[in-house]
Amino acid sequence: MKISIERGALLKAVAQAQSVVERRNTIPILANVLIEAEGDSVQFRATDLDIEVVDKAPAMVERAGATTVAATTLHEIVRKLPDGALVTLTADPAAGRLTVDAGRSNFSLATLPREDFPVMASSEYQSNFAANAAVLRRLFDKSKFAISTEETRYYLNGVYMHVSDGPDGKVLRCVATDGHRLARVDADLPAGAVDMPGVIVPRKTVGELRKLLDDDEMDIAVSVSETKVRFATPDITLTSKVIDGTFPDYTRVIPQANTRRLEVDAAEFAKAVDRVATVSSERSRAVKLQLENDKLVLSVNAPDSGAAEEELAVAYGDERLEIGFNAKYLLEIASQVDRENAVFLFNSSGDPTLMREGNDQSAVYVVMPMRV
Amino acid sequence: MKISIERGALLKAVAQAQSVVERRNTIPILANVLIEAEGDSVQFRATDLDIEVVDKAPAMVERAGATTVAATTLHEIVRKLPDGALVTLTADPAAGRLTVDAGRSNFSLATLPREDFPVMASSEYQSNFAANAAVLRRLFDKSKFAISTEETRYYLNGVYMHVSDGPDGKVLRCVATDGHRLARVDADLPAGAVDMPGVIVPRKTVGELRKLLDDDEMDIAVSVSETKVRFATPDITLTSKVIDGTFPDYTRVIPQANTRRLEVDAAEFAKAVDRVATVSSERSRAVKLQLENDKLVLSVNAPDSGAAEEELAVAYGDERLEIGFNAKYLLEIASQVDRENAVFLFNSSGDPTLMREGNDQSAVYVVMPMRV
Repeated sequence: MKISIERGALLKAVAQAQSVVERRNTIPILANVLIEAEGDSVQFRATDLDIEVVDKAPAMVERAGATTVAATTLHEIVRKLPDGALVTLTADPAAGRLTVDAGRSNFSLATLPREDFPVMASSEYQSNFAANAAVLRRLFDKSKFAISTEETRYYLNGVYMHVSDGPDGKVLRCVATDGHRLARVDADLPAGAVDMPGVIVPRKTVGELRKLLDDDEMDIAVSVSETKVRFATPDITLTSKVIDGTFPDYTRVIPQANTRRLEVDAAEFAKAVDRVATVSSERSRAVKLQLENDKLVLSVNAPDSGAAEEELAVAYGDERLEIGFNAKYLLEIASQVDRENAVFLFNSSGDPTLMREGNDQSAVYVVMPMRV
Repeated sequence: MKISIERGALLKAVAQAQSVVERRNTIPILANVLIEAEGDSVQFRATDLDIEVVDKAPAMVERAGATTVAATTLHEIVRKLPDGALVTLTADPAAGRLTVDAGRSNFSLATLPREDFPVMASSEYQSNFAANAAVLRRLFDKSKFAISTEETRYYLNGVYMHVSDGPDGKVLRCVATDGHRLARVDADLPAGAVDMPGVIVPRKTVGELRKLLDDDEMDIAVSVSETKVRFATPDITLTSKVIDGTFPDYTRVIPQANTRRLEVDAAEFAKAVDRVATVSSERSRAVKLQLENDKLVLSVNAPDSGAAEEELAVAYGDERLEIGFNAKYLLEIASQVDRENAVFLFNSSGDPTLMREGNDQSAVYVVMPMRV
C-alpha cells in the first residue's frame, strides 16, 4: 500500500475513527485502525467490537493494499503535522512497518496484519430510511442527558429509538430515563421507517453519532435491525450493536392528569435554581419550590452550611403547592428549553412532574420529586 | 457587621482570597474567609497557615464588624449573582449566621467566630523595596516551570529569589531547578533591595503572586525577611512563609565553557520535537539530536511502537555531535523563548547543555542530557 493524502482530509478521517478506539485495550489489534486503499480513496476502520466506524477520504493511491496501525499514534502525528502538508503513507509488510512521510518529517510505525482486524459481520437490516441530520440531532440531544449510568440496569444505558403514536399519527421517538427523570422526544416519521423495530442505542454510539450530525442539510441513511443500527453519510458509516434488553414501558410513567400549571422563563429559572443550590454541598441537592399566586419561591436548607431562598415572578394560578426536586435534574431539563417558556405540570408533591417547552408536545420531560 | 458592595468588586476580592483556601481542610476555620468591615472598606482574609492573602474593596459600611464564612460557598454565590447587583452582607452573631442579600436572592450562611481565625503574626522585614509588576512576572514566569515536585527535596519546591552578581553589577535573580533542568532569570536590582536575604518562594505562593502581576504599570511593594516574603498592591497583600532550607549552589551547574553553538528557530524546533516524540508512549521520551553542517536531525526510536525523524535547517558550524534529551524538558525550555532564536551551547553528549534567547544572558536555562 502506498497513498498520498492531504493532511486536513487525513486528520478528519483518522479523528473520527480513533475516537471509537478504547484507551485501554487488552486485545492489541483493537488499538489499531485498519487502513484500506483502493481506487481513488482510502478508508479508515476502527472498532471496539460493539461499534464500528468506517471513514472514507479521497487519496492518490499509488499502490492498493491494507494494513493496521495504532490509531491514537497516527492521529497524534497527523494532528501535529503542519496545515496543508501532503502526507504519504507506505506499508512495508515484510518489515511490519508503515511509514508516514510529510515534508522533512518521517515516521515509521509498527503494524499488525490486516487479517487480524475484527471486521464487523455484515447484517440484514429490516428497515432502511433517510433522516435529516438536524432532526436526528434534536432527537438525541434532547434525550441523552437522561440516560442511566447504572450498569446493573443495562437496558437503560441508551436511548430507546422506536416508532410510536403521536397526537397526529406515527412518530419517530427517542426516550431515555434513569428512573429519576425521563425524556421523550418525537419527530415526524421519515418515509420508510414505519416497520423499524424499536432499538436501544447505547450511550457511546449516541456520542459517536453526534459527530455525523453537524450539517443541517445532510441526510443520514439509517438502517435498523433487531440487533444492530447503522447511520451513514456519504463518507462515514457508523455501525453499532444495540442493547440486548427490553426498554421498560415508559408510558405508565408519563403523567396524563397533572393540572397545576406553572409557566416560567427557563433561563431565569435555571439561574435561580443554580444560585440557591450553592449553599448545599451534598451531591443530590434538594431544592424546594413553593408556588402560590404567580409567585415561585425556590429554597434550599442545608442545616450545616446555611440556607438560601429566591423569589421569581411566574404564571401560576392553582392552589398552593410545595414540592422538592434534585437541583441537578431541574437544571438539566430547564436547559433543554430554548425557544419558549418552560411549562411545568404538577399533581401533588409526591407525584411525578411533567415539563415541556410552551405547548410543544413533541418533547416532554418527567422528573420525580424529592421529599424536602 | 452590615455592608453593601457592588457584586463585581466583591467577586474580585473574594475570588483572590478563596484561591488560597485548600479544598480539603481538617481544621474547619481554614475553609473560611475572615470578613472585616470598617470605615469605607471591607477586607477579606484567607490563609492556609503558610500563605495569607488580604484583599480590600470599597464598601458602604453601615455597621462595622467582622465574621468568618465558608470561602468557596461565598465565592460560588457571588459568582452566580447577576452582573451589577448590589450585595448586602449582614452578620448576626447571636444566630451565628451571615446573610447575603441581592435582589430577590437571600442566603444565610453558617459562620465561625472571628476570634478563631488564625491571623498570621506580623513580622519585621529586613528589606523593603518596590518592583515593577512586569519585571516580577518575567522573573517568576520564566523560572517556575523548573520547580521540583519531589517533596523529599523540599528546598527545591520553590523559586530561589536573591541578589546576585550579574555581568553589569548586582541583579535580582530567580532560580529554580529539579536536578534535571535549571532556569536562572535576572532583572535589574530595584532600589533598596541590595540587602535582601535570599529566600525560596514556595510553588503555591508563586502561583498566587502571579495574579497580582497582570498590570504592567503597577509597582509591587516587596518585603523580605529570613522567614517570610510579602508582595502588596494597594488592594491586595500576599504574605507567605518561605521554604526553610538552603538552596543548593546552582552556579556549579551552569556550564561556562560550552563552545558548540546551535542557533535554531525556537517555535520550529519545539514543533519538530513534539512531532517526533509522538511515536513514544513512555513518560520520559528521549529525543536524539544529531548536529552537523547547519543540519539538525531530531529522532526518536521506540522499539515497540515505531520511530520518527525530522530534519531542520539550523546554524551549526562545530564538529558532529549526537546528544539526547527528555522531550518534555526541551519543549519547556524552548517555550521560554519569545523574541529571538534559541541558542544552545553544548559541550559533549554527557555534559549539561545551556540554552538562552539569542545573546541575552539575563535568562539562561540548563538541561541535563539523557543517554540515547
